Amino acid sequence: MIIDFIADYYQNMEKYPVLSQVQPGYLAKLLPKSAPNIPEPIETILHDIQQYIIPGITHWQSPNYFAYFPTSSSIAGFLGEVLSTGFNVVGLNWISSPAATELEFVTMDWLGQMLGLPQSFLFSGVGGGVIQGTTCEAILCTLVAARDQMLAKVGRENIGKLVFYGSDQTHCALLKAAKVAGLECKNFRAIKTMRSTAFQLSAESLRTTIRLDVEAGLIPAFLCATIGTTSTTAVDPIRSLSEVTKEYGMWIHVDATYAGSACICPEYRHFMDGVENVNSFSFNAHKWFFTTLDCCCLWVKDPGALTKSLSTSPEYLKNNASDSKQVVDYKDWQITLSRRFRSIKLWLVLRSYGVENLRNFLRIHVKMAKRFQQLVESDNRFEVVVPRNFAMANVQHFNRNLLETMNASGKVFMTHTIVEGIYVIRFAVGATLTEDKHVIKAW
Amino acid sequence: MIIDFIADYYQNMEKYPVLSQVQPGYLAKLLPKSAPNIPEPIETILHDIQQYIIPGITHWQSPNYFAYFPTSSSIAGFLGEVLSTGFNVVGLNWISSPAATELEFVTMDWLGQMLGLPQSFLFSGVGGGVIQGTTCEAILCTLVAARDQMLAKVGRENIGKLVFYGSDQTHCALLKAAKVAGLECKNFRAIKTMRSTAFQLSAESLRTTIRLDVEAGLIPAFLCATIGTTSTTAVDPIRSLSEVTKEYGMWIHVDATYAGSACICPEYRHFMDGVENVNSFSFNAHKWFFTTLDCCCLWVKDPGALTKSLSTSPEYLKNNASDSKQVVDYKDWQITLSRRFRSIKLWLVLRSYGVENLRNFLRIHVKMAKRFQQLVESDNRFEVVVPRNFAMANVQHFNRNLLETMNASGKVFMTHTIVEGIYVIRFAVGATLTEDKHVIKAW
Repeated sequence: MIIDFIADYYQNMEKYPVLSQVQPGYLAKLLPKSAPNIPEPIETILHDIQQYIIPGITHWQSPNYFAYFPTSSSIAGFLGEVLSTGFNVVGLNWISSPAATELEFVTMDWLGQMLGLPQSFLFSGVGGGVIQGTTCEAILCTLVAARDQMLAKVGRENIGKLVFYGSDQTHCALLKAAKVAGLECKNFRAIKTMRSTAFQLSAESLRTTIRLDVEAGLIPAFLCATIGTTSTTAVDPIRSLSEVTKEYGMWIHVDATYAGSACICPEYRHFMDGVENVNSFSFNAHKWFFTTLDCCCLWVKDPGALTKSLSTSPEYLKNNASDSKQVVDYKDWQITLSRRFRSIKLWLVLRSYGVENLRNFLRIHVKMAKRFQQLVESDNRFEVVVPRNFAMANVQHFNRNLLETMNASGKVFMTHTIVEGIYVIRFAVGATLTEDKHVIKAW
Repeated sequence: MIIDFIADYYQNMEKYPVLSQVQPGYLAKLLPKSAPNIPEPIETILHDIQQYIIPGITHWQSPNYFAYFPTSSSIAGFLGEVLSTGFNVVGLNWISSPAATELEFVTMDWLGQMLGLPQSFLFSGVGGGVIQGTTCEAILCTLVAARDQMLAKVGRENIGKLVFYGSDQTHCALLKAAKVAGLECKNFRAIKTMRSTAFQLSAESLRTTIRLDVEAGLIPAFLCATIGTTSTTAVDPIRSLSEVTKEYGMWIHVDATYAGSACICPEYRHFMDGVENVNSFSFNAHKWFFTTLDCCCLWVKDPGALTKSLSTSPEYLKNNASDSKQVVDYKDWQITLSRRFRSIKLWLVLRSYGVENLRNFLRIHVKMAKRFQQLVESDNRFEVVVPRNFAMANVQHFNRNLLETMNASGKVFMTHTIVEGIYVIRFAVGATLTEDKHVIKAW
């Protein structure tokens, strides 16, 4: 019944408004004030989901969804999550389910190869990959490792002097992670970028900013560079930035949350130029890679830096395998101890579609975004704000209410940003079911 | 095919060794070195899962699983996760799927009522609940809120002076969270507990420890009290501890990770005595509450304290609903921005079973643990280490190799701890499929 329900949901999805049209507080009025004492039949529950829940859903899987970034599902991703939930194991350490840990090795090495990551990031080299929930966790873990590495040199009392860098386009996940990690907000440098240079962080600006901080007695610790920023999919120049961070012994993390997946296509690989010089690299397979939420892939060159900061070893988790140091205990690579068997869904996606198809799916999305951008360019009421890098177009229109009107129609859902004072409509193609006709209709 | 595969897995589960018997590195040898270029049929993939993955699984859902704590699944929990994966929405803020946010309100208020939490923790009062991934996140979020609240009073430069407290039985998640949050490990007080007082943290010891810290110029900030510790399910006296923390303006979090679920039964509610005085309370519905991993339920009295530390508001996430301040944006209640639609599985569990059945399921587990303990007591080779509080027995045996021999047999899986120098076998009943016969067999 549940599988049929979900199949019907996908069948009917285009009939629902993409952006939910309910009002705040709508649901509490429709549901009882307390849990039932006795069981309710699944028919009643499914009825309520159809009547009460679906109207309150914003349909991220709709072919008319062009908002934020995609969170693309697929049959294989879905089935992988179902298997993971069926097994329902807690792979916190190796012994608690060796297959969960070892399949993660294998899958992360496969995917790392697909991206052309150097051997130094793979288990077959001296690095390794780990599946986190989201980019927020990946940034937090690497930032904590970077913080502790630096404080080990300069003394823990200097935590208030650590400076962390990004551009004014860097995702807010960096500032959030820094706040959690106990760093000072005032020590965040959101270095200015410009439309004229496609909102890239320039190495020159970074160097100038760092010099001023060092002169002021502060300690540069961490740079988050981005491949595919949220506002405009800008790509920071990894190689030249890494040359600057190297001078100062800083950690450099590459956040390729959205655009990392495109780098499995050789024609996008150049955006990763210089990646061999960075400390860590992450992208979300649950964004534009057909794997259901959540699945953030993080590779690090020095797993020891992560585990030094994140390890715990209470008596009740001790076991011979861990003591032997022959195994990886992923609990020490992440914020949480418990972890789901996420690698199996990523493995199903890779095997069910194969590398060539995955590349082609992404290329089709890019082609649709290109098509949309051409349509925009052909109409002088609109302007393209920055050149398209991947499958997202950035559009300026004289009427700010246009976006709200479109979203209120329920026929499409797009979101906005503001860059250099320009109000921009973002049009991100990537929902698995989107076809040419949806893009034309959206236009 | 996948559903049939999972059904077969449950059917055959008792044929597999509970604790996986594979050797480190077994899987990489069995799988190709890189992802396939072309699609592979699901039959091939399922064959590989049967042949290669299942032998590497430690079967947490086996009726012969008595290790760590349970991670109990159920049909309703499973189906809820399947629905959540089908919708695959990212409920980071209200607008991105109002139903995901509002169902979480409703479900957390239902569950809060079931636990007898005071109105001050519920949305129907002035507090509120949020579903996090795991306890590690719940402790980290509350610790960060407590840290920032205190630093706002004493100045951020004093981060190195903040002291956080637990007992020597407190879960390692506290120390891990503190490390992530940039607190000093040396400022963690793991206050000594004793077998003679059932490993409870005494208010007197806490007061003495705090006084010494204050005299030394340090600043007490946070106490993590536990209902149901990992080693022996000890219960800290919440009321008397909260009287001490109140004197010092400290945050007190109650970690009821495992035993919280039992408190839906009136006969266990007394363990929560004094909870009206604490700041936050959490338990894992994915542990002993039939909801699949992950689902940690956290209630706070002052959501503003959380959101003050964890909020972000970049332009690309701005929307009218958030601006109106009429809605909850759960991204500001947790470490990550993206979040799965977890409430739907908890809601399915509550509705499909009903409160009375859920209580009875837990009572049956307790009864089985009681039975096991009686068997132990009747045999003078064994000794019960501390009186049983919930569904876990603590057993001492003269031969330390016993546990390893049992686990190597593949017939049962239990884990150990050490308290007051005593090597203890933990026998935790709670796997959904466990029946009397499995307990007898284990004995």
